[in-house]
Amino acid sequence: MRKMKKYCYGFCVLSSIIINILFAIYLYLGGRGSGGGSTGGGECALSWSEKAAAEAEAVAAISCSDHGRAYLDGSTNSEGRPVCECYACYVGSDCSQLSRGCAADANSGDPIFLEPFWMQHATNSAILVSGLHRMSYRYNDNLYMSVELENHIRKLHSIVGNAITKDRYIVFGIGSSQLLNAAVYALSSRNSSSPSNVLASIPFYSMYKAQTVLFNSKNFRFGGDTKAWQLNNSTNNMDVVEFVTSPNNPDGELKNSVLGGKTIYDHAYYWPHFTPIPAPSDHDLMIFTLSKLTGHAGARFGWAVIKDKDVYEKILTYIVVADLGISKDTQLRVLKLLKVALEEDGKPFFKFAYNKMKDRWDTLTSIFSKSTRFSIQHIHPLHCNFFNQTRLPSPAYAWVMPRFSSSGHLADLVQSSTLLAPPLFCSPPLQSFSEPPCPPPHHCRLINISKGERERAIDA
Amino acid sequence: MRKMKKYCYGFCVLSSIIINILFAIYLYLGGRGSGGGSTGGGECALSWSEKAAAEAEAVAAISCSDHGRAYLDGSTNSEGRPVCECYACYVGSDCSQLSRGCAADANSGDPIFLEPFWMQHATNSAILVSGLHRMSYRYNDNLYMSVELENHIRKLHSIVGNAITKDRYIVFGIGSSQLLNAAVYALSSRNSSSPSNVLASIPFYSMYKAQTVLFNSKNFRFGGDTKAWQLNNSTNNMDVVEFVTSPNNPDGELKNSVLGGKTIYDHAYYWPHFTPIPAPSDHDLMIFTLSKLTGHAGARFGWAVIKDKDVYEKILTYIVVADLGISKDTQLRVLKLLKVALEEDGKPFFKFAYNKMKDRWDTLTSIFSKSTRFSIQHIHPLHCNFFNQTRLPSPAYAWVMPRFSSSGHLADLVQSSTLLAPPLFCSPPLQSFSEPPCPPPHHCRLINISKGERERAIDA
Repeated sequence: MRKMKKYCYGFCVLSSIIINILFAIYLYLGGRGSGGGSTGGGECALSWSEKAAAEAEAVAAISCSDHGRAYLDGSTNSEGRPVCECYACYVGSDCSQLSRGCAADANSGDPIFLEPFWMQHATNSAILVSGLHRMSYRYNDNLYMSVELENHIRKLHSIVGNAITKDRYIVFGIGSSQLLNAAVYALSSRNSSSPSNVLASIPFYSMYKAQTVLFNSKNFRFGGDTKAWQLNNSTNNMDVVEFVTSPNNPDGELKNSVLGGKTIYDHAYYWPHFTPIPAPSDHDLMIFTLSKLTGHAGARFGWAVIKDKDVYEKILTYIVVADLGISKDTQLRVLKLLKVALEEDGKPFFKFAYNKMKDRWDTLTSIFSKSTRFSIQHIHPLHCNFFNQTRLPSPAYAWVMPRFSSSGHLADLVQSSTLLAPPLFCSPPLQSFSEPPCPPPHHCRLINISKGERERAIDA
Repeated sequence: MRKMKKYCYGFCVLSSIIINILFAIYLYLGGRGSGGGSTGGGECALSWSEKAAAEAEAVAAISCSDHGRAYLDGSTNSEGRPVCECYACYVGSDCSQLSRGCAADANSGDPIFLEPFWMQHATNSAILVSGLHRMSYRYNDNLYMSVELENHIRKLHSIVGNAITKDRYIVFGIGSSQLLNAAVYALSSRNSSSPSNVLASIPFYSMYKAQTVLFNSKNFRFGGDTKAWQLNNSTNNMDVVEFVTSPNNPDGELKNSVLGGKTIYDHAYYWPHFTPIPAPSDHDLMIFTLSKLTGHAGARFGWAVIKDKDVYEKILTYIVVADLGISKDTQLRVLKLLKVALEEDGKPFFKFAYNKMKDRWDTLTSIFSKSTRFSIQHIHPLHCNFFNQTRLPSPAYAWVMPRFSSSGHLADLVQSSTLLAPPLFCSPPLQSFSEPPCPPPHHCRLINISKGERERAIDA
C-alpha cells in the first residue's frame, strides 16, 4: 500500500514536470511566430501595423445583413463605429429592411458583380499602406508611374491575349476617363484655325462629347455621329479623331474604325467577362480601365497603350501638366489587385467573372424569349482565344427593345406610353448615352447586367 | 535528513504545480487578445488582414542604411524581395555608399522633411485597404467625395485658423494641381470672342501658365505678369482671372490680389510650418494641397474652398467630367493621415513641422550672414494665431542672391560667370518658376529647405 502510494506520488511529480516542459516548449515555439489568426495559436509577430489591420477587420466584420457594407471611412454612429451603408432599396441600421416600391438605378456602370470574388480573396487582395508610402512626387527613377505596375499590366495583356503591348508605351490615368481627353489632345490638330473633329458612332459613351465640350479647346471640337459626319463631309481637308468603343457600349458588339484615320479605341469592356477574345487588339491607341476589369471603379485607374512615341509623349505631358501623375496609393493597390487577378494565369478570376455574366445572360435570354412585348439585343458566338472555345458574348448591358405587334402597331410600354421607334433606347437627361431623351412618360429601358446581385432589375 | 528530503521533495512538487497553473493562466490570457507584437505575448487576433500587415512590416524592416527605403511596390531582387531605393547621391544595394561629386536637386518641391514625424507615428498612420474597399464610382450618398474627409478638412482649417470654411463649399482634386485649371475654367469668360486673361505675379509657379497653354481653351488665355499686364491694359472691357500665391513661391511672402477682381488664392504653403498665421484666409476661392501639409505629395490630393455656389458647381462639373472624381483609396488614406495630424488639436504635428523648418532657417541665416558673396531673402516677423506668438516665417525655399561688391561690380558666381542683375533667380529650362533662363554657365540658386535631411544642400 505504501509502495503504491509512493509510485503514485512519483508518477504525479513526473507528470507535473513533463507538463512544465511541454508548456515551455509550446510558449517558446509560439513566440517564434508560428502565426496566429485563423490558424490559431502562437504569438502575433506584428508591431506597428497590427492596429490598422485590426481596425480594418473590425469594420469588415460589422453585420449589414448582406444588404450593405460598413467602411473604414464611413460616417460613424454615437459609439464611433462606422454605420452600415445599405445597397439600393434596403434601409435600416443593419440594412435588413427592403424598401417597397423602390426602383434600382440600372443605368450606372458599377461592375459590382465581382464583389464576391474579392470577398473570397480577402487575404491576398488586402494591402497595408504605411504612413511612409511613396511620399515623393516621383518614383526613384524620376517617373510618375510605377514600373512594377506597368510590368504587370503588360503581363495581364499577354495572359489575356486582348492587346499587343510589345514595343508600345503605357501611360496611366485617373480611370480611362482622363485618358479619353488626353488622347484627343494628343491626336488633335495643332492648327487652331482648323480644329480636329471628334467623332463617335451612336450610341456612344456620352463622356466623349461631354469632355470635348467642357474643355472647349481651340484644337478640337465635337463633330457628332461618325457615319452622319462622313455623309456630310469629306475628310480630305478636315482633321478627324474618331472614338471607337469595342465592345461597344451599350450594345456589346466588337467594332472597328469607320474612317480608318486617327482612332482612339476604348476597350473598357474588352475582357473575357464580357466578350470572346478572338485576337489581341493591335491598334495604335487603346484605352483600358480597371473599373470594368476588376470592378474597382472607385480606385480611378486606367491606362493607355500607345504605339507612336510622339503621341505617347503628348499624353504623358497632358497627365503631368493636368495633375502631376496619379496617386501612388492607388498604384500600389492596383498592383496588389492585379497580382490576385493574374494568379494561375488569370483562369480562376476570369472564369469567375465570365460565369457570373453568362449566368445572367442565360437567365435574361430565357425571360425575354418568353416575352411577347420586349426583346433584347441579339448576340452572336465567336471563338475566344482565352477560353479556347466558341462562346457567346455576355455584355455589361442589355438593350431592351419593344417587339412590334402583329397588327403593325407598336406594343404599349409602361403606363400606356407610345413607343417612337425601335430600337428603344431612352436617355433620361444627364444619363450616360448619347441619344435624345424620350418624350414623357417613357422610361429608360437599359439594364446594367454587371450590377451586383443585390440590385433589383427593372420590370420589363 | 529524511525529513529534509521529504520537505524538499514536497516543495519541488508544489513548485511544479504552481508553475503549471501560471503557464495555463498566461496562455489563457494571451489567447484572449492581450495583443501581440511589440508588447509581446498573446495570440494574434487577426485573420485575413494579417498577411498584408506582415508583408508591409517585412518591407519596412528592410535596411537601407538610413539612406534609402524599400517599398511594397518597388522592383524586386532575385529572391523576390523589394530592393532599396536610395536617396539622392547614395548608391549600393543597401544605399550605404555616398556618390562623390553628386549634386542634389534642390529645385523640386518634395516636402520630405516630414518623414521623421510619420516614422514616429507609424502605428496610427498606417491604413489597411481591403479588396472590397469602395468598389463603386460613388459613395453611398451618390457623391464622389467622402463626407468624413470633408468634415475633417473643415476641422483642420478651424484648428489651424488659416481659412474660413463656414458656408463654403469644398471640392477635392488630384493634388491642388488639378484644381488650378478647374478654378480657371470656373471663373473664366463663357464668351469665346472675349476670353479671360489668366495672370500671375512674377515669380509665379509655372504650372499656372503650363496648364493654361496646354488646355488652350477658347475661354481663357495666359496673359503673363499681373503688374505688367495692368500697366498695358485696362480691365474695363477685359475679363481677368488672377492667380495669387500666398505665401508666395519661392519668396515666402504673404500676398494679396493686385487687381481685386476674380482671384484664385493658391494657399499651398499657408500652414504654420512655413509662415505665421495672422488670420484665417477669407477669400472666395482658396486652394490647398496635402503635399505641403503632411508631405504626402505622392498621394495626389488637394482641395478648393469656394464661396460662390455657381463657381462650386462648375469646379465640381470639371472634376467629374475630367475623371469622375478622385480615387477613394486616396481619400481613405488622407482621412487617416489627417486624423493623426489633428491629434491634440494639431499641436504635436505642427510644432514638429515648424521646428524642423525653423532650425533650417536658423542654420541658413547664420551661414549666409557670414557670406560676403551671397545672401538670402529677408524675412519679417508677424503674429501667428496658431502658435500665439510673433515669429519669423520659415519658407519652403531660400532665394539665394549675390551681394554687390564694394566696387559696385557684381560678385562672381560659380565658375567665374557674371551676374546679370539681382535678385538672382535662375531657371534652368523646364524648371518650376517663370523667369527667363540664365545665360550659361549660371546655375540655379534656389534651395528647397523643405527637402529631407538626407539631401545635400547646394554649395553657396
